Amino acid sequence: MLFAVQMTVNLAPDMDPADRASTIAAEKQYAQQLQHAGEWLHLWRCAGQYSNLSVFDVADNDRLNEVLWALPLFPYMDITVTPLARHPSAIH
Amino acid sequence: MLFAVQMTVNLAPDMDPADRASTIAAEKQYAQQLQHAGEWLHLWRCAGQYSNLSVFDVADNDRLNEVLWALPLFPYMDITVTPLARHPSAIH
Amino acid sequence: MLFAVQMTVNLAPDMDPADRASTIAAEKQYAQQLQHAGEWLHLWRCAGQYSNLSVFDVADNDRLNEVLWALPLFPYMDITVTPLARHPSAIH
Amino acid sequence: MLFAVQMTVNLAPDMDPADRASTIAAEKQYAQQLQHAGEWLHLWRCAGQYSNLSVFDVADNDRLNEVLWALPLFPYMDITVTPLARHPSAIH
Amino acid sequence: MLFAVQMTVNLAPDMDPADRASTIAAEKQYAQQLQHAGEWLHLWRCAGQYSNLSVFDVADNDRLNEVLWALPLFPYMDITVTPLARHPSAIH
Amino acid sequence: MLFAVQMTVNLAPDMDPADRASTIAAEKQYAQQLQHAGEWLHLWRCAGQYSNLSVFDVADNDRLNEVLWALPLFPYMDITVTPLARHPSAIH
Amino acid sequence: MLFAVQMTVNLAPDMDPADRASTIAAEKQYAQQLQHAGEWLHLWRCAGQYSNLSVFDVADNDRLNEVLWALPLFPYMDITVTPLARHPSAIH
Amino acid sequence: MLFAVQMTVNLAPDMDPADRASTIAAEKQYAQQLQHAGEWLHLWRCAGQYSNLSVFDVADNDRLNEVLWALPLFPYMDITVTPLARHPSAIH
Amino acid sequence: MLFAVQMTVNLAPDMDPADRASTIAAEKQYAQQLQHAGEWLHLWRCAGQYSNLSVFDVADNDRLNEVLWALPLFPYMDITVTPLARHPSAIH
Amino acid sequence: MLFAVQMTVNLAPDMDPADRASTIAAEKQYAQQLQHAGEWLHLWRCAGQYSNLSVFDVADNDRLNEVLWALPLFPYMDITVTPLARHPSAIH
Repeated sequence: MLFAVQMTVNLAPDMDPADRASTIAAEKQYAQQLQHAGEWLHLWRCAGQYSNLSVFDVADNDRLNEVLWALPLFPYMDITVTPLARHPSAIH
Repeated sequence: MLFAVQMTVNLAPDMDPADRASTIAAEKQYAQQLQHAGEWLHLWRCAGQYSNLSVFDVADNDRLNEVLWALPLFPYMDITVTPLARHPSAIH
Repeated sequence: MLFAVQMTVNLAPDMDPADRASTIAAEKQYAQQLQHAGEWLHLWRCAGQYSNLSVFDVADNDRLNEVLWALPLFPYMDITVTPLARHPSAIH
Repeated sequence: MLFAVQMTVNLAPDMDPADRASTIAAEKQYAQQLQHAGEWLHLWRCAGQYSNLSVFDVADNDRLNEVLWALPLFPYMDITVTPLARHPSAIH
Repeated sequence: MLFAVQMTVNLAPDMDPADRASTIAAEKQYAQQLQHAGEWLHLWRCAGQYSNLSVFDVADNDRLNEVLWALPLFPYMDITVTPLARHPSAIH
Repeated sequence: MLFAVQMTVNLAPDMDPADRASTIAAEKQYAQQLQHAGEWLHLWRCAGQYSNLSVFDVADNDRLNEVLWALPLFPYMDITVTPLARHPSAIH
Repeated sequence: MLFAVQMTVNLAPDMDPADRASTIAAEKQYAQQLQHAGEWLHLWRCAGQYSNLSVFDVADNDRLNEVLWALPLFPYMDITVTPLARHPSAIH
Repeated sequence: MLFAVQMTVNLAPDMDPADRASTIAAEKQYAQQLQHAGEWLHLWRCAGQYSNLSVFDVADNDRLNEVLWALPLFPYMDITVTPLARHPSAIH
Repeated sequence: MLFAVQMTVNLAPDMDPADRASTIAAEKQYAQQLQHAGEWLHLWRCAGQYSNLSVFDVADNDRLNEVLWALPLFPYMDITVTPLARHPSAIH
Repeated sequence: MLFAVQMTVNLAPDMDPADRASTIAAEKQYAQQLQHAGEWLHLWRCAGQYSNLSVFDVADNDRLNEVLWALPLFPYMDITVTPLARHPSAIH
C-alpha cells in the first residue's frame, strides 16, 4: 500500500556537530536499508529545501507508523502523510 | 528533470454532464499518452480526494509549463509544483 | 485498517430543493448501509457545523478511496483523511 | 458527552532523557486509567506523527478541561477540541 | 454548559431582497426567543463585520447542535464553536 | 465599551518553578481585582487549552491597552482583540 | 478614538455596469462626507490592490460599526478592524 | 524604483469565449507596450500556474498603482506587491 | 512616498533586563528623531499587542529599507510593508 | 533555466557576534562569486525585511539544489522555490 510522505528537517544551527553527523549518518543507513527492502520506494530531495518527498510501500498503517517513528531524524522532523490509491488514468 | 505536481480538481456540481464527461475523457487520454511517452512518470490518486500526486520527467521548466497548461482539466485545477533533485541517500 | 475522515458539506443555499432532498436521503441510506457492513465504524456530527468526523475500517487505501468517491454528497464535500495506527497506550 | 481531541506533542530533542522517560510513562499510566474508567473512549495514533486522535466521554466541559489539564504531557502539547453531537445518519 | 460561538454571515449581494428580508427577520425573532429562554446568553456584533460573537448556555452538545442548525441564517454562515469551562481566576 | 479578548499563554516547560508560581499568582490577583472593579466583565477558560476568552468593559482603546499590557503574563501571551458593538437582535 | 480599518473590495467582473458605477459613486460621496466630518481621518489606496487602509476617529465601537455598515460597498467588502492606542514613543 | 509583483489570474471556465479572447489579447498588448517603455522590467510565467512573477521599474507608488489598475485582466487577478531595495551583496 | 508598516516585537521573557531597557530606550529615541525629521509620519500602538502600525514618508524603497534596518529592535521584529498610493476618494 | 527563490534569514539576536560576522561575510562572497559566474542572475532586498528575492539561472534542479545548500546562511534560512518559464507576452 502506498503513502506519500513529506519530511522537513529542522536541525538547530548550534547542534553538537558530532551528534549531527552521527544522526545524519544513521538516517542515511536506515533510509538505504529500507529502500533495499522495498518499503521506501522513492526518495527525492525537494530542491533547495532541507526536505524530501518520499513514497512508501508498506503492509498497512501500523507498519508505516513504525517505519517513520524509527527514523533517526524523527525528533527533528515535520512529517505529512497522504495515503495513495490507484488512479483511474494510470497505465501501470 | 523531475517535478512533483499536485493537482486538485474543482468541477461545479451543476456543470453540464456532457461537457464534464468529455473533459474527463480527454484528460484521461492525454494523461495516458504522456505516461506512454515517459514524461508523466507517476500518477497516484490522493485517497478520498479529487486530487492526484504526480511526478513528471521533462526536459526543462518550459516543457513542464507546456504540458500542464495543455491539461484538459487545467482551467478547473489548483496546481502546486515542486522541483525535485537527487537525494544523497537515494540508492537509485 | 482505520482512517479518520472529516467531511464538510457545502450546499449552495439556492440548490434545487428536490435535488437537495434526494441527495441527502441517498447519503443517509449509503451511510447506514456502510455502517451495517462494518466499514463506516463511527459517525459523529461536529456540533453546530455541517461537518462530520468519521472513522472507517477498510481493507486498504484503494477501498477507502472507492468508498469516499461513492458518497452521494462527495461533489459537495471538503474531505481530509488521516491514517490511524495503534497507539502504544491504548488498552484495546 | 463526546469530544474529539487531537493532541500533538512537542518534546525538545535535547530534553533530559530521564524527565522524558518519566513523563511519557506517567502519561501512559494516566491514559490507561482514564480508558479503564470509560472517560477516554478512543485513542488512536495519527500514523507517522507524534500526535493522537482521541474521543472523550465526559460529564461536561468542566470535566473535559480538568482531564486534559491533568495530562502529564499537557505543557508540551498543542490541543484542539471539537464537541461532537449525534449524527442523524448514525445507526448507534 | 457554556459555548462561545462565532457566526459570520455570507449573503450574496444579488440575493432576492424579499428572501433576504424575511430570512433576517426570522433570524432576529429566533435569536430573541432563545435569549428570552436563557439559552442564548450573550450576543454581540463584531464591530464593522457581518459577524457576531455569542455565548450559549445549553444542556449539552446535542442541544447546541440543534439550536445552531435551526438558525434561519445557518445555510449562509461560517460557524466556530469553543466549549468554555470555569476559569480558576473567575470571581463568579 | 466592550472588547472580546482571547489570551493564549505560552510558558516554557523548563521555566523556573518559583517564577512560574509567582507570575501565575500575580495574574490571578490582577484578574480578580479588575473583575471586582467591573472592567474585566467575563473570564472563561477555553476547555482543554491554556487559553481564555474574556470580555472587557473599558472607557476606550487606551485603557484597554493599559489594562492588557499590565497583565503579569503579558510577555508570555498571544492576544487577539475584537471590538464589540450592540447587536440589533440583542434583547439587553 | 482611532481604529485602523482595511477594506478589500470584491466586485464580480460580470456585475451590472450601471449598478457598479452608481455603487462606486455613492461610496465616493459617502467617504468624502465622512472625511469632511472628521470621522474618516485617513484614506490610502494599497498600491496595486482593490483595497484601502483607513484610519477612523469615532466616538466608540458602536459608532464605528454604524459607519462601516453604512458603506455602499459594505456587502462587497472584506474588512479588518484594529483598535489603536497612543504609542509611548509618539511625539504627537 | 523596483517592485516585485505576483499576479494570479482567475477566469471562470464558463466565461464568454469572445470576451476571454479579447481581454487576453488586450492584456498582451498592454504588457508588451509597458515592457517596451521600460516600466515592466521582467515578466516570467510561474511554471504550470496561471500566474506570473514580474518586476516593475516605476517612478513611485502612485505610478505602480496606476499601471496595475489599468491591466485588462485586473478584475480577474489576485496581486501581491513587494517593494525592492538594493541588496548589499548585489554586484550591479 | 508613503508606506504602511506593521511591526510586531518579540522579546524573549528571559532577555537580560539591562539589554532590554537600553534597546527599548534606543528605539524610542530613534523613533522620535525620525518623527521630528518627518519621515515617520504616524505611529500608533495596536491596542493590547506588542505591535505598532506606522506610516512612513520616505524618498524611495531604498530609504525605507535603510530606515527600518536601523531600528534598534529590528532583530526582534516581524515587519510587513504595504506601499500606499493616493486614493481617488481622498479629499487631501 | 530560471528559478525565483525567496530567502528569509532568521539569526538569533544572541548569536555569537564573530560567528555572525563571518557567516554574513562568507555569504556575501559566495553570492558575488555566483553572480559573476552568471548563475545568480538577480538579487534584490525585500524592503524592510531580512529577506531577498533572487532569480537563478542554472542547468537543472540538481544544480539549483547544490547552489542553495552551499549558502553559508542556509541553516538559518526559510527558502521558497518557484520554477519560471517563458511568458507568452514577454518581449525578450
